[in-house]
Amino acid sequence: MERLFTRGRTIMGRLQKGDDLLSSLQRICSGLEIAQGELSAIGAVTCARIGYYDQAERKYAFLHLSRHLEILSLMGNVSLKDGVAFVHAHVVLGDESGRAFGGHLAEGTEVFACEFTVREFLTETPLRRSMDEETGLFLWGEDG
Amino acid sequence: MERLFTRGRTIMGRLQKGDDLLSSLQRICSGLEIAQGELSAIGAVTCARIGYYDQAERKYAFLHLSRHLEILSLMGNVSLKDGVAFVHAHVVLGDESGRAFGGHLAEGTEVFACEFTVREFLTETPLRRSMDEETGLFLWGEDG
Amino acid sequence: MERLFTRGRTIMGRLQKGDDLLSSLQRICSGLEIAQGELSAIGAVTCARIGYYDQAERKYAFLHLSRHLEILSLMGNVSLKDGVAFVHAHVVLGDESGRAFGGHLAEGTEVFACEFTVREFLTETPLRRSMDEETGLFLWGEDG
Repeated sequence: MERLFTRGRTIMGRLQKGDDLLSSLQRICSGLEIAQGELSAIGAVTCARIGYYDQAERKYAFLHLSRHLEILSLMGNVSLKDGVAFVHAHVVLGDESGRAFGGHLAEGTEVFACEFTVREFLTETPLRRSMDEETGLFLWGEDG
Repeated sequence: MERLFTRGRTIMGRLQKGDDLLSSLQRICSGLEIAQGELSAIGAVTCARIGYYDQAERKYAFLHLSRHLEILSLMGNVSLKDGVAFVHAHVVLGDESGRAFGGHLAEGTEVFACEFTVREFLTETPLRRSMDEETGLFLWGEDG
Repeated sequence: MERLFTRGRTIMGRLQKGDDLLSSLQRICSGLEIAQGELSAIGAVTCARIGYYDQAERKYAFLHLSRHLEILSLMGNVSLKDGVAFVHAHVVLGDESGRAFGGHLAEGTEVFACEFTVREFLTETPLRRSMDEETGLFLWGEDG
């Protein structure tokens, strides 16, 4: 399924050292009442918690990385889940030897520095997440 | 070379489990008659086929990863090649241990779940790919 | 802190073989007098120089990769530093075995081929970088 949107607001900003990366982006998007959009960020974290979805077991396994890492990319989207702005983001992280790691961004990832952009998209019928039986994930429905 | 564009449509959507990742994005962009644009996506695949361009041999070497992987980032663009919308995208993929892999997205990458955005850009003289002798790649010409 | 912007110009282009990746993006953005924006790119490099910020020592350590690598993602932003357009970008790079590496993009990264997009954002009070004592980095201030 694909849907057309018009463009809404553009936000750039930075998070503070010590902020929880996912919760902060979530709080900013819900504070601005963004129903749909896209986000990207770069920066660094003092530690990270990332998920890998086990497609057979249909559940996330989480990994905690207790290391200082660069945020090489954070790519994500915003849509409504249970009526509120929900951020879904994936990150790529880099260590001191340049090796890259990554996964589904989870709470427990602590910001050292982070510069982000949010691009809001507008539409009459909001994009909503609901349980998709085929994958076990909350995905966008055909009707929104 | 750089060119100025005005903004066209914004599309968000998701692919279905079992879809070929590159072919589906290609089909959506050509269906919408997008001449230029940019795309990004996150999600997961059941297997992947990625290319690495051998700059000396001037040809792609392809790698097939027969594993369930997260799409940590898909970044790409759309332009015309032989008159039709052509998607050029690179992916970063993550495994269950958090390690990241990636390359030039090729056909043979199967979607588990995928959320994408396409941003269309408009211009009078479309951006066209043609053979660049210096690199052996199909790149954008100075005149389009 | 977060700030609202309106949208400015959209630029797509490509760099030439042999260009310095960061310097070229910097030159294009300052030539276009872009005060704020976002950029993304994919392509390939003949060698790369990437930084990792040592959060304890408060300085960058640089790594030189003398290899042909794909640019799997380049994600960055543009803002003013000392009155001129300053590009801050992170890259993810991939080798012939598909492994991913990355860091803070530094001068010394040589382009083989590179396709980029710059999205300009406009505002009355420009976004400016100044020294942040907490991190030792030049970050955006509360007032700009």
